[in-house]
Amino acid sequence: MKFSVDRAVLLKALAHVQSVVERRNTIPILANVMLSAQDGALTMTATDMEIAIVEAVPGVTVTRAGRTTAPAATLYEIVRKLPDGAKVELDHPGGDAPLALRAGRFATSLMVLPVEDFPSMTEGKLPYGFELPALTLRELVDRTKFAISTEETRYYLNGIYIHATESDGQKVMRAVATDGHRLARVEEPLPEGAADMPGVIIPRKTVNEIRKLAEESHDPVEIKLSDTKIRFTFGSVQLTSKLIDGTFPEYDRVIPRGNDKILTVDKKAFAEAVARVAAISSERSRPVKLSLKPDSLTLTASSPDQGQAEEELDGDNVSYNGTGIEIGFQARYLSDITDQIAEKVEFRFADGSAPTVVVDAAKPEALYVLMPMRV
Amino acid sequence: MKFSVDRAVLLKALAHVQSVVERRNTIPILANVMLSAQDGALTMTATDMEIAIVEAVPGVTVTRAGRTTAPAATLYEIVRKLPDGAKVELDHPGGDAPLALRAGRFATSLMVLPVEDFPSMTEGKLPYGFELPALTLRELVDRTKFAISTEETRYYLNGIYIHATESDGQKVMRAVATDGHRLARVEEPLPEGAADMPGVIIPRKTVNEIRKLAEESHDPVEIKLSDTKIRFTFGSVQLTSKLIDGTFPEYDRVIPRGNDKILTVDKKAFAEAVARVAAISSERSRPVKLSLKPDSLTLTASSPDQGQAEEELDGDNVSYNGTGIEIGFQARYLSDITDQIAEKVEFRFADGSAPTVVVDAAKPEALYVLMPMRV
Repeated sequence: MKFSVDRAVLLKALAHVQSVVERRNTIPILANVMLSAQDGALTMTATDMEIAIVEAVPGVTVTRAGRTTAPAATLYEIVRKLPDGAKVELDHPGGDAPLALRAGRFATSLMVLPVEDFPSMTEGKLPYGFELPALTLRELVDRTKFAISTEETRYYLNGIYIHATESDGQKVMRAVATDGHRLARVEEPLPEGAADMPGVIIPRKTVNEIRKLAEESHDPVEIKLSDTKIRFTFGSVQLTSKLIDGTFPEYDRVIPRGNDKILTVDKKAFAEAVARVAAISSERSRPVKLSLKPDSLTLTASSPDQGQAEEELDGDNVSYNGTGIEIGFQARYLSDITDQIAEKVEFRFADGSAPTVVVDAAKPEALYVLMPMRV
Repeated sequence: MKFSVDRAVLLKALAHVQSVVERRNTIPILANVMLSAQDGALTMTATDMEIAIVEAVPGVTVTRAGRTTAPAATLYEIVRKLPDGAKVELDHPGGDAPLALRAGRFATSLMVLPVEDFPSMTEGKLPYGFELPALTLRELVDRTKFAISTEETRYYLNGIYIHATESDGQKVMRAVATDGHRLARVEEPLPEGAADMPGVIIPRKTVNEIRKLAEESHDPVEIKLSDTKIRFTFGSVQLTSKLIDGTFPEYDRVIPRGNDKILTVDKKAFAEAVARVAAISSERSRPVKLSLKPDSLTLTASSPDQGQAEEELDGDNVSYNGTGIEIGFQARYLSDITDQIAEKVEFRFADGSAPTVVVDAAKPEALYVLMPMRV
């Protein structure tokens, strides 16, 4: 194998693939990227056995076809440190010989491992398929990701649940995540071809990787899946992931329907007030108390050894139609939600101890449920 | 005590004083800042018993004189989160009553501790005094700080040693730091009044604090000291620190004088080549080998499980007048030095196993000694 390529092109592809590689590996070949130069084109592959990423690299001049695997993180670090605009030549004579990389006066030879040992996890049929605009995919992820559970014992909550359903008579695709203390649910019009798809749980690491790839992409993302695997195609980058083999809870039952005490509050004023009153305590889990009266909201927080803080919001910033209630939430849970909302936040309360619904007033299909804390 | 002040003014002063406060404190009052409003002026004081910082805060409207102490980190966090342009009112009725802070619709009351318990460490005579431009102080710190030892058992190396001496017949002030593997030494013309000062070791934390204050300052810094304490005055901010009670080693003996093999190398080309070849290994302590021939330098590094890398520098980037030698240094030790050098780096070698002198070719009084590693 022998090819040359611009440093910038190589770096971009390596940045994608090395991100999937786990830093601490007991299986040496999983630290490697497979380079495959065939028919005048270069393909890079990396995997952690849960996710595989395959990237077709454009603009490569292949002078001898071939394949090998080399340490992904080291190759990435080296290419990152080559000067801007460098032309990089990679040469592998075959077999156990090291992979030579040259750029100007710099040369490195990297240990290789046999291509035959490189695991493949991209086989298998993916019978369901649809497309989503990259922006829609980002929206589905951003609005729910923060609520993914980190408790490994509840593995079926360690991802985002995606499924096709109906909402108010409309066919929708829903993304849901919950850690038991809060739930995030967002929906988008159901894309063509997704009606029959099974509900699937996409693991956290996959969610993070596709979020990064969606950031760089403006084209529609092609998604194919079975009930065990999902594949996202972003132009020349293809990411295949196993799905979490578990049953997502019947989340719909925990979304209160009858909450009729409605508070609408300006997002910026509310988020800043939460941050200010929460600054009284360095314990992140202490609650912020919301005290509601008609068209008035007072936020308070206290710390046994620091003191207490409060801020009142009213006037243009607040409208509230209910009776007086007091209810507490973790400051971070509130800010995780308001971070996703641009202008107006709508709270739907039942009383001071019942689950509360929060929605983006401009997009009520982005819905959150928060369990209150005792205050 | 009652006063009002602009949020920006209060925030700047709190940023300085809270930086000295240790986050983990067994003595509660050391977590507090002392606020003292007298004669129409506000003074803030914080200490960790090693360093005390006193700041006079301008533009404060004092309506009732008085003093109290309140949690520094909490006060800082709260003021940081107040809106830009806010007017802040602080009110302490006296005694154990909490300190009230109000800004717009936000209010907080902070627990206080008695002023009488707040330790003072700013007494004592400081018989020696001189001034340094803020830029000179930054230079003395930046060129030496990285070589400060972190080994707590060698407490006398846990700071920068400053003393007055002669160099080539000129009176100079020298700053020196060493961790036993490398030494950094820089000198500046001796300021007026410093001739009789004792040699003193300024502890690392103090070095970091004065570096931050020097960054903001363009005026000359007033420095006063005894053999146990040093005080830096940056305009309205005064930082007093204990000195390390120990004997700095006779560092002059470890600086080789006869090294006559001179390599001059372009800083940028050299630093980038070091970073590239060192990328072959993730172990930070592995050496980079420098192989020298007349007017040619080759850098190599290797890793048992990754491979090896090399880069040759020659042409305009390198001049070398000696015989062939090979010598190894830790990559980070090389980059710590080149980070302080703008254009040309001059190495002075004896042989492949002896301490090597490195200087900034444009400022040879900034001198470094590096112990080689076996390669």
